[in-house]
Order: sequence, then C-alpha cells, then structure tokens
Amino acid sequence: MTLKSFASDNNSGVHPLIIEAVCKANSGHFVGYGDDIYTVEAKKLFKETFGDNAEVFFVLTGTGANVTALQAYTDRFHAVICTENAHINVDECGAPEHCLGAKLIDVPTVDGKLKPSDVEKYLHFKGDQHHVQPKVVSITQSTELGTVYTIDELKALVEFAHAHDMKVHMDGARIANAAVALGCSLRELTTDIGIDVLSFGGTKNGMMLGEAVVFFNKDDVEYFPFIRKQNMQLISKMRYISAQFIPYLCENLWFLNAKQANGMMMYLYDELVKKAPKIITSKPEVNAMFVKLPKDVAEKMQKERFFYTWDENVCHCEEERRSNPHCIYRFMTSFDMVKEDIDSFVEFVCRYVGG
Amino acid sequence: MTLKSFASDNNSGVHPLIIEAVCKANSGHFVGYGDDIYTVEAKKLFKETFGDNAEVFFVLTGTGANVTALQAYTDRFHAVICTENAHINVDECGAPEHCLGAKLIDVPTVDGKLKPSDVEKYLHFKGDQHHVQPKVVSITQSTELGTVYTIDELKALVEFAHAHDMKVHMDGARIANAAVALGCSLRELTTDIGIDVLSFGGTKNGMMLGEAVVFFNKDDVEYFPFIRKQNMQLISKMRYISAQFIPYLCENLWFLNAKQANGMMMYLYDELVKKAPKIITSKPEVNAMFVKLPKDVAEKMQKERFFYTWDENVCHCEEERRSNPHCIYRFMTSFDMVKEDIDSFVEFVCRYVGG
Amino acid sequence: MTLKSFASDNNSGVHPLIIEAVCKANSGHFVGYGDDIYTVEAKKLFKETFGDNAEVFFVLTGTGANVTALQAYTDRFHAVICTENAHINVDECGAPEHCLGAKLIDVPTVDGKLKPSDVEKYLHFKGDQHHVQPKVVSITQSTELGTVYTIDELKALVEFAHAHDMKVHMDGARIANAAVALGCSLRELTTDIGIDVLSFGGTKNGMMLGEAVVFFNKDDVEYFPFIRKQNMQLISKMRYISAQFIPYLCENLWFLNAKQANGMMMYLYDELVKKAPKIITSKPEVNAMFVKLPKDVAEKMQKERFFYTWDENVCHCEEERRSNPHCIYRFMTSFDMVKEDIDSFVEFVCRYVGG
Amino acid sequence: MTLKSFASDNNSGVHPLIIEAVCKANSGHFVGYGDDIYTVEAKKLFKETFGDNAEVFFVLTGTGANVTALQAYTDRFHAVICTENAHINVDECGAPEHCLGAKLIDVPTVDGKLKPSDVEKYLHFKGDQHHVQPKVVSITQSTELGTVYTIDELKALVEFAHAHDMKVHMDGARIANAAVALGCSLRELTTDIGIDVLSFGGTKNGMMLGEAVVFFNKDDVEYFPFIRKQNMQLISKMRYISAQFIPYLCENLWFLNAKQANGMMMYLYDELVKKAPKIITSKPEVNAMFVKLPKDVAEKMQKERFFYTWDENVCHCEEERRSNPHCIYRFMTSFDMVKEDIDSFVEFVCRYVGG
Repeated sequence: MTLKSFASDNNSGVHPLIIEAVCKANSGHFVGYGDDIYTVEAKKLFKETFGDNAEVFFVLTGTGANVTALQAYTDRFHAVICTENAHINVDECGAPEHCLGAKLIDVPTVDGKLKPSDVEKYLHFKGDQHHVQPKVVSITQSTELGTVYTIDELKALVEFAHAHDMKVHMDGARIANAAVALGCSLRELTTDIGIDVLSFGGTKNGMMLGEAVVFFNKDDVEYFPFIRKQNMQLISKMRYISAQFIPYLCENLWFLNAKQANGMMMYLYDELVKKAPKIITSKPEVNAMFVKLPKDVAEKMQKERFFYTWDENVCHCEEERRSNPHCIYRFMTSFDMVKEDIDSFVEFVCRYVGG
Repeated sequence: MTLKSFASDNNSGVHPLIIEAVCKANSGHFVGYGDDIYTVEAKKLFKETFGDNAEVFFVLTGTGANVTALQAYTDRFHAVICTENAHINVDECGAPEHCLGAKLIDVPTVDGKLKPSDVEKYLHFKGDQHHVQPKVVSITQSTELGTVYTIDELKALVEFAHAHDMKVHMDGARIANAAVALGCSLRELTTDIGIDVLSFGGTKNGMMLGEAVVFFNKDDVEYFPFIRKQNMQLISKMRYISAQFIPYLCENLWFLNAKQANGMMMYLYDELVKKAPKIITSKPEVNAMFVKLPKDVAEKMQKERFFYTWDENVCHCEEERRSNPHCIYRFMTSFDMVKEDIDSFVEFVCRYVGG
Repeated sequence: MTLKSFASDNNSGVHPLIIEAVCKANSGHFVGYGDDIYTVEAKKLFKETFGDNAEVFFVLTGTGANVTALQAYTDRFHAVICTENAHINVDECGAPEHCLGAKLIDVPTVDGKLKPSDVEKYLHFKGDQHHVQPKVVSITQSTELGTVYTIDELKALVEFAHAHDMKVHMDGARIANAAVALGCSLRELTTDIGIDVLSFGGTKNGMMLGEAVVFFNKDDVEYFPFIRKQNMQLISKMRYISAQFIPYLCENLWFLNAKQANGMMMYLYDELVKKAPKIITSKPEVNAMFVKLPKDVAEKMQKERFFYTWDENVCHCEEERRSNPHCIYRFMTSFDMVKEDIDSFVEFVCRYVGG
Repeated sequence: MTLKSFASDNNSGVHPLIIEAVCKANSGHFVGYGDDIYTVEAKKLFKETFGDNAEVFFVLTGTGANVTALQAYTDRFHAVICTENAHINVDECGAPEHCLGAKLIDVPTVDGKLKPSDVEKYLHFKGDQHHVQPKVVSITQSTELGTVYTIDELKALVEFAHAHDMKVHMDGARIANAAVALGCSLRELTTDIGIDVLSFGGTKNGMMLGEAVVFFNKDDVEYFPFIRKQNMQLISKMRYISAQFIPYLCENLWFLNAKQANGMMMYLYDELVKKAPKIITSKPEVNAMFVKLPKDVAEKMQKERFFYTWDENVCHCEEERRSNPHCIYRFMTSFDMVKEDIDSFVEFVCRYVGG
C-alpha cells in the first residue's frame, strides 16, 4: 500500500523510534505486570513531564483509559457529564455505562466544547435521591470536532467543577495535537490547570498500542490497580507498552509527530481553500478537517480512497435533502505524512470537487 | 538481567520470530480495527488450524478473552460453572462478575479438573426463578494446577454440557503446553471435541501480547464485535496483534515453544527427584511444578530468585502449622529456557533444600 | 391532614375498594411467589383486558417495571431510545443503566413525544461495532410533560420501530389517564397498536403499591421470571399485590379514577383561565398542568402548600433571569379529589397570583 | 384453604394488627417517598429498638434489603464473603453480582455458620491487584440451615472482620426467630455486638411485605438513598410499608410471632421424635426442621401437602443412591399455627413414615 490514508490518524503505522524501543525491551526476564526497568523508566518520565504528583498507569486502549479513569471517581449512582459528540458517549459501544454501571449525561454543543453553564443545568440533581449525582466532567482535548479548548476555557471549567465537588477528566487521545496548536507544554495543559485525571493517548500519534492514565493527585490512585485489572487493561508483559513511552516522551516524539500532523493539515487546508473552496466548512485547529460534499460524489470518492462520513443530517431542509443531499465528511492527517502525500490527496479531491 | 525467572511463563521476553513479525507489520497505512492484510492472513491461519467453521477475534489480554467469550453466551441471570482454582474465579479481580453481571459457581476439585458430576449438582437450578441458570461450563487446559484433561475427559464433559443445554468454554492460556503433553493437535483438542469457544493464549508461550477468542460455530459470533468493543478489547492498530499469530501458527512456534517449556520442566523434575526429592509433591504434566518447602527457607529463597507462593494452607494440623510451617510453591519453565538455565536453578534450590 | 396535595398523584391514599381487596386476600396459607388464587384471578383479568396473548408479571415499583421490561429485550451492548424528559432517563437514579448495563439515548423534544424521525437519526449506528445498537424505543403515555400520544402517532412509531427490528416499550405509569383522555380502551392503546411491552401502573391512580409488566407476545417472556427476581421485584406474598388489580380491572376503577383526576384537572384549568390566566402555559390533556410563576412568589406558595418546581431554566434571556426570574411549576390532580378540593386550591393560587 | 402450609413461613397470611395498621395509614394525602407521619413514627421506633445511632431505610424485598445493604459498603472490585448456603449466594438469582458488579466468595460449612477461620483464608487476597478485595462478611441469623449463631460466635466474627478492615452484614430475614431462641433482645443481637448493617425482615414473621435496612453507624448512610432508588426499592406510598413496622415493634409482634412459630416447631419435633423418630436429622433451633425421607415416599407426600426438597445429594454411596434413595426435606412452622395445625401435620407425616 503506497497511498496514505486520510480516514483517521490511527491508519498509520508506528514511528521507527517506537518500534526500536519495543525491540530493545525484548531482553531477558522480568517479573510481569510492571515490575521491569522499562516501566520504571517510563513512570519517571511521566513525573518529569507532568510533575512529581503525577501517577501513571499503563492500559491498553483509549476506551480502556477513559473507562478506568472514570471508574476511579464514580460510584454506580453517579453521572459523568460530557458532550453529545464525546467519544465516551458515541464511540465506545456503551463501555462506560456497561463497566461503571453509572450514567453519562450528554450535552449538545456547537463546537464540541463543554461550558460551565452546560454543567450548571444539572446541579439541581444534587442531593435528590431520584437523580444520578453529577460527579465527573469529562472533556476531550482536542475535541471530536477538531476544536481546541483554550487554557482559559479549561481553567474556567475546572474551577467550576471543583467548586461543585466534581472531578475533571480529560480524554487526551489527541492531547499532543492540542498542545502543539496552543503552543504550550503538556503540563501547562493539565497539571497547571488542575484537571484530575488524563487519558494520555499515543496510538493516534505514532505509537503502536497502549495508553496511559495519569492521575494528578496521589490520593486518587489507591484502588486504581484493581480497577485496571477488573476492566481487563492489565497485561503481563507490560514492558512492551511502557517502553514505547520512553522515546515518546524522552525524544519529544509526542511533539514532533503532532507538529507534523497538524502542519500537514494546515497545508491541506491552504491548498483546498485555493482549489476546492466550496467544500470547506471551517478552518482546522489540529489534524482534522470537516468538509461538505454532495453525497453521490462522496460515495464515489470513498471507493477510491476511503474516508469517514461524519454527519448525514446536515441539509438545511427536507427539500435539499431530497434533491441534492450533502453530508459532512472528515479528513485527517497523520504524523508520517509529508507534502507529497498532501499534494496527492488534493489532486484526488480536486478531481471530484475542484474549482 | 542474566538469570531467567522460574516464577511464571510470562516473565520471559518474546520469541525473535514474533518480534520480526511485529516489525514487518509496520509498513504503510491500513484502515484500523482489523481491516488489514495481517489480520486477514492470521484469520486464514486460524481456519487452517481449527477448521473452516472457526471464527477468530483478536483481543488484548487473557482475562479479556475469557470475559468476552463468556459474555457471548450468557445473559445476566446465567451462571458459569468452573473450578475453585479457575483463573476466572481467582485471578481476574472479579472481571467476569463485573462485566457479565452474572454469577460464577465454583466447584472444589482435587486436581483442577471439572467432572460431569460437578456440573450435575447444579442442574436442579434449571427453570427455578430463584436461582441463576447454569449456561456455560468453563474449563482450563492445561489447568491452573498444572494438570491436563485427557481427550476422553473433555469429550465426556462436552457431551454432558451439551446434553443439558450448556456451552463449553476452554481457557487455553496454556493450551499449547497441553497439546504437547497429550501429543495431539490443537484441532483434536478443541474442534474435534466439540467445545464452543476457546481463549487461545500466546503470551505465556513466547508472544508479546494479544490473545484470540475462537468460536467453533458461526452462528455464535453475530454480536461478538460489540461485546469485544464494549469490553475494551478492540484496538485500532490491530495488525500488531494479529501479525504475531502468523509465525505462531505458520512456523509452528506454538508447538516448538511449548515443547521446549514442557521439556525443560521434565528435566527440572528429573534433577530435583534426584537431588531434592523431599520437596516434590507430584510429577508435572506441563511446565508447572508444585513443591513443598519450609516457609522460612522459602522466604530466603524468594529473595534471591523470586517465585510464587501457591498455597499457604497445607499443613496437616495446627501443631505442624505452628512448629514447622510448610507451604506449596510453584516453579514454571518458559519457552526460552535451555539446560543451563535449569542446572543453575537446580543448583540454587539444592543450596537451600538439597539432599 | 385535611387539605389534599397538588404536588403529585402519588400523594393520595388508596381507593377503598383496593384496601378492601387487600384485606380480603388475607385468608389462609398459599405457596408463595404467585401460586395463589388472587394472582390467578388477576392474571385472568389482564387477559380479558389486553387479549389472550397478554402475559402479565407483577412487580413492585414503576422503576422496577420499566427496568425489567427493558432488560427483557436488551443485551448489554444495546441502546434504548427515549426522550430527554423520560422518567427512565431522569427520575430513576440511573437504574436502567445500572441494571441493564446498557445505554439510554435520550432525544430532546418539545412536547415529550418521540417521533420516528427522532429514532431514525440513530439507525446508522446499526451494525457498527463502535456504537451501541438501538434495540428498544421507550415512550411514556401519558408523557412526563402531560401530553398524550394519539393512536395514529403511536401506530406510526410502532410501525417504524418494528420495521427496523426494534421493540416498543410503553411506560404506562399514567396510561389510564391517557386512555380516558383519548376515549379509548386500554387494549386499543396497546395490544391493537402492536406495542411489545407495557409498564402498567396503578399506584398513581388509586392503588397502594405494585405495578404490572404486560408482554404482548408469548415468546418474549421465557426468561422474565429470572429478570424479575434478579432485579429484586419478586415478593413472596404476591397475593397482596395481585389482589389490588382485581377491583382495579374488574370494577373499572382504572377508568373511574383516571376520569375523576382528569376531570378535576379540567375544572382547575377552567377556573385558573378565568381567575389567574397569566400563569397558564398550555391546556392540560390529562391530570398535570404546568404553570409559570415568579420564583419568589412560588417559593412562598410552596411553603404553604407544597408543589414541585418543574423547570428552572425558562427565562427568555439572562436579563430576565436576573431581574424577574420565573420558573415552570407542576400542579397535579388525584383520583380522590372533588370540586371543593379544586376550589380551595384555586383560592390559594389566586391569593398569590390572581387577576 | 383450611390446612396450613409447612413449606415456608412465607406461606402464611398477615397478622391482623398489621392489616389494621395498613388500613389506618390510608387517610389523607402525604408527600411521597417517606415524608409522612407513619414513616416518621416507624423510624423513631427503630431507634428505640436498636439505639440512637440506628438509621433505618424501608425497602421492598429481602433480596432488595441484602443487595442494597451490601452495595453501601462495596465498590465493584470488592468481595463479600458468605457461606455456600447463604440466601445471597443461592436464592437471589444472582442479584448481588448483577447489582453490585462485585463478587461473592462462598465458603462451605457444616452448620451454615461462618467462622473467623473461613474468612482468614482470603486475607492474602488483600492488596493484590489480581484478586477481588474482601470487604464485607455476610452472615444469616438464624441461618438457612435453621441454626443460630451464639452471641459469642457473633462477637468473635465481628471482631475479626473489623480487625481486618471488613464490615459485617447480617441477613436477618428470621432474626426474630433467632432472638427468641437465644432469649435476647434485637439490640443485644446487633447493636451491642457491633454489626454494621442489618437486613431486618418481617415478611416471614407475619408482615405483608417490606423490609428494613438498618445501619448502625450514621456515617455509613450518606449515599444510601441513591442506592435504594437505583435498586428499585423506593416506593412512593411508603407509608403502607412503614406503618406495618409500628405494631411489629411497638406491640412486640416480632417477639410474639416468632415465639409462636418456634414453639410450634418444638412441639412438632417432640411429636415426631415420638412417632416418626427415624426421619429426624437434628433438633431444630428455630422454626425450621430438616428430615430425611425416602424419595419415592416424599414425592407422594408432597402431592398431598407441599413442602420443599432441601438437598438431593445426601446418600452415603452410589449404591444407596440407586437402590434406596433418600433426600433431605424441610418443614417450617409459621406465626399463626396452633397445636391443632401441628397435630394434623404429624398425623399426615405418620401416615407415610410413622413408627
């Protein structure tokens, strides 16, 4: 396969330094479940990155990171407040409800970002035995809609949540892309803002598999090992997960990869603005772009080079929906793309909808 | 680390051919979640190994394989019958109950093997609304006690279960070791016997991570993709899991690795029979051996070379327990051990309890 | 306590015929859990009311009826589609998610009524392993907003659901009030329309406690006894629940009580239209009325005669919210109210907000 | 039905004073969910009975009481240790595992009573992420085998549990029978011993339905209202449950009824010792008696007057099981039985197995 995929940033392979780290970890015997030198080293790097209070646990999937992070703070009668587009709400096949035995309350948003006022609406539930009790605010940075919370927006939300005895979880499947977009460090985006727990993803940014759950208060982790095991996120040969995080953090791969993916998206955007301006819906902030295409044209394009349909319900009226249906589609760039990949993709797009 | 660990067969690294397969899979872009050439190839190999009706799904951990396999057959009011030593009963931090919302009924055994009469005792539950309904019989091959079900024992159990409208799940975390011990093929141990679903493990036998759930009836898998995702066992870059199974099956690694581990255990046993006979409790059938050691001596040994305490409650009487306490300990061999490793370990053991 | 409560139709006592039935059931010994003559008689009456295929099971609470009814049709990866105001979504402290291990998808509505197009939006989830699978459409008749689905609206929804392999659950906590409003029989509202399962409530309409889950297809009930027991809805002395349904169905109490409650609400509405028109928001269809009151006035009123605040977020703008906040409040009538009760309440209301 | 049932103490009707209390509660309107004068009065009586720290919550079934009491102390990775005969383990259709998402560890016993050493075996689980964490010891007083823990046995168990950071739950479905047998007060059996939470049952002792969960430490109840609602144990017209407890406690009905049931069992035992001694297995301690009968004879008897088969697996050997099978059967007495009822039952038994 020579052409690169714009369907998702998980369609790429793995960065060579990550593969190298995995191979290097394959030496000798270690007691399982994290009692190895690679896990020790990776944990140290997380403390260097996020501060001394950061406690990291390695897990296996993004959904696994989100669910275990949320279970750490919720009893079965609690609620997690998130957006209607949140990965935990839409793309995890009900894993949060299934595993937590608790409820998600999802809030509609325009831009994928939760505001204090979205949470405030549910505060009257507090203390009333008929209602689930709001306990965690879960946000995604960068969001599922490709937007990025500013530092100030995050601070306001965390402050509001804490003032009402709620915790804040950040789904950071693409936190690297957000940090690059904001020009800030991972620490400025998390520790310094006061979030409580982070799903720190690397798979979409050049890692092989494995995610990290990072807690920012030492008191919160006492029972997490049981939660991780019970949710089937503990592996015996953990070193092959933790070793990946060593170059990811130590060699700044998280930054370099995300910068490349974001940069290529900006280049793609600039090219499409020039060559196919009518499909543009908004300027991308990270490595995702949402375009509007005629449904029949898009279907032909998807057969040639697959990408995802994002939203089928975007026509202004029933009339338009019948006569000339359009949908929203998503293009994504990956850490391993270079200008030639973009040029090839732009050529492909313009062949269908250029001019 | 130069010395190899006899604590568990998951303390070893990964076979070079597996690492090679992982590195080779790192080429180009593929649509995620299994839509790649490595997963297609691995699936084909599973059909060659287990027969055309075998449907395989790749998951992430042994516990994940067991839980999802069991969920495929159980509603929340069902029960799974297993032994009291079963991994699902003891070593999964309650994941089965937590994720299935169903009950395990665990049966005491002498040798870790379930018999039809153990299941029969619970048949009177059937149809009575006050009781969970027995639906799955779960067995481990080879067992947690290092024993191996014979083909005839398996056939009798499967026949009994099916006659009473129950399914049979086999936890095959060490099925390769069992097949080697019995001198039979994987197919003879599963498909030909009529079991319904298999947790096919490779991690304890030279793989990196990742397990396979193998169903033997096509009708049983319709909803399994949802079960896998909901239980956080689906990864985007699946090729790095599935690729490992290619040499594992194609190059007969499953057999060669297990044969080596079992063989080294037999050699260890022969040596200890000669040099430390009083610690022997029984002849190992696969790659695990259970020895009886004075507690105080064992504690010193564990500090030098770690191994697990298996059972603390083995003294004949309160008197013995106080004056001269002994416990049962487990030694395990791994796929990558050679005679020198065993000799070194025998020397270590004999230094404490030889003669 | 002489004044009657307009806070909820569950604030009343029990109809004398129901008390009489409970007392009459207190004779002699019967095998527990439903093996008694009262339960047999009540089951017969349900078949007379809903048709020969109707299978009834007695449970203990409205939430219990809803949850068990939904569990009968859902696996853990399924979704139930309902409105955002649905009792199951808001007022059951997460019992559905907790007990089903499945997800509710809640849809915003203007009038509390679900439309086929609300369900259609989620059909693209079908077959995709990342998403919960829509399996049940749950509606409330009459709705939590005091509105009533017409027979045609119900038919359209049922037809749509069945065409897409979904089941329809009706939360009939107030189905009697809806039937009276529509001038139709219970059977016309359920069996004849093709709904699959009904939570048939009586507590809000003059019964003491206990609800009934009515299935309309005999094939759907095989496992329901286990579901009921597992969800703690099975009582040993069931006759004291089932006996209540005998006069409720046989003496047409369901109809007479609902007619009285609805009628008294119409009288209350007529009086308030005349005497306090500015608080009216819409004409009630059954026994609930939603009024808009200045927040400070309402708080004084609630201290004198308690009623519930329904919605705090109804001001047109931030300006109004600060300077002159209003909220929506709910008044409800009960089966045991007579004109004098209404007159007394109208006098009370007008004392605060009349003219 | 003129003959009384010896199948279970839940086959009887309701004591006249209980019916009277229910009827008396049927006056006027009250805000639902416990905000009524009967619930206030009943709560006061519980404090008088169990001490000022006792906090009571009314629920609907015995299973509901057990499950909610256990959920108050357990997270999803915890374990509850009980006997293999425990009602929670055998007779609740998996409700505890289903609702708690946690594990029961059941221990075999000879007499239905748990000992500190039974719990001690699982202490090595503590702190190890692979194992569920023992958190609650659950005992039944009187036990499912008709035995009674002495005060000293209870004290030893509570002391052991607390010393190891575990809580003690008492399933008191028949606590009244136990208190009568021991000649002690309810308080001496619970508060004074230091148990943490009690399922206080009345249904088997002359009440209609409804149970009480009694906590002995005020700090433990903060979240219980949510747990009760989420587990579908909260009813709107609570007064009809709480009112029953008023005469039950105030008029000493709990004592008088249990004394009658126990006394009648002693009389039944004395008569059978004289007239059918060979069926006796042991002397009853409360109101349950276990007898050994030839299977074929018992089946005829059960058709004439139904009673439950308790244990089918009691023959000494396979030989006896084939040639002359016997099983264990249970006879129970109820609060409303008098000597004539016993005489009639003795005559019935002796007609089959006398002499």
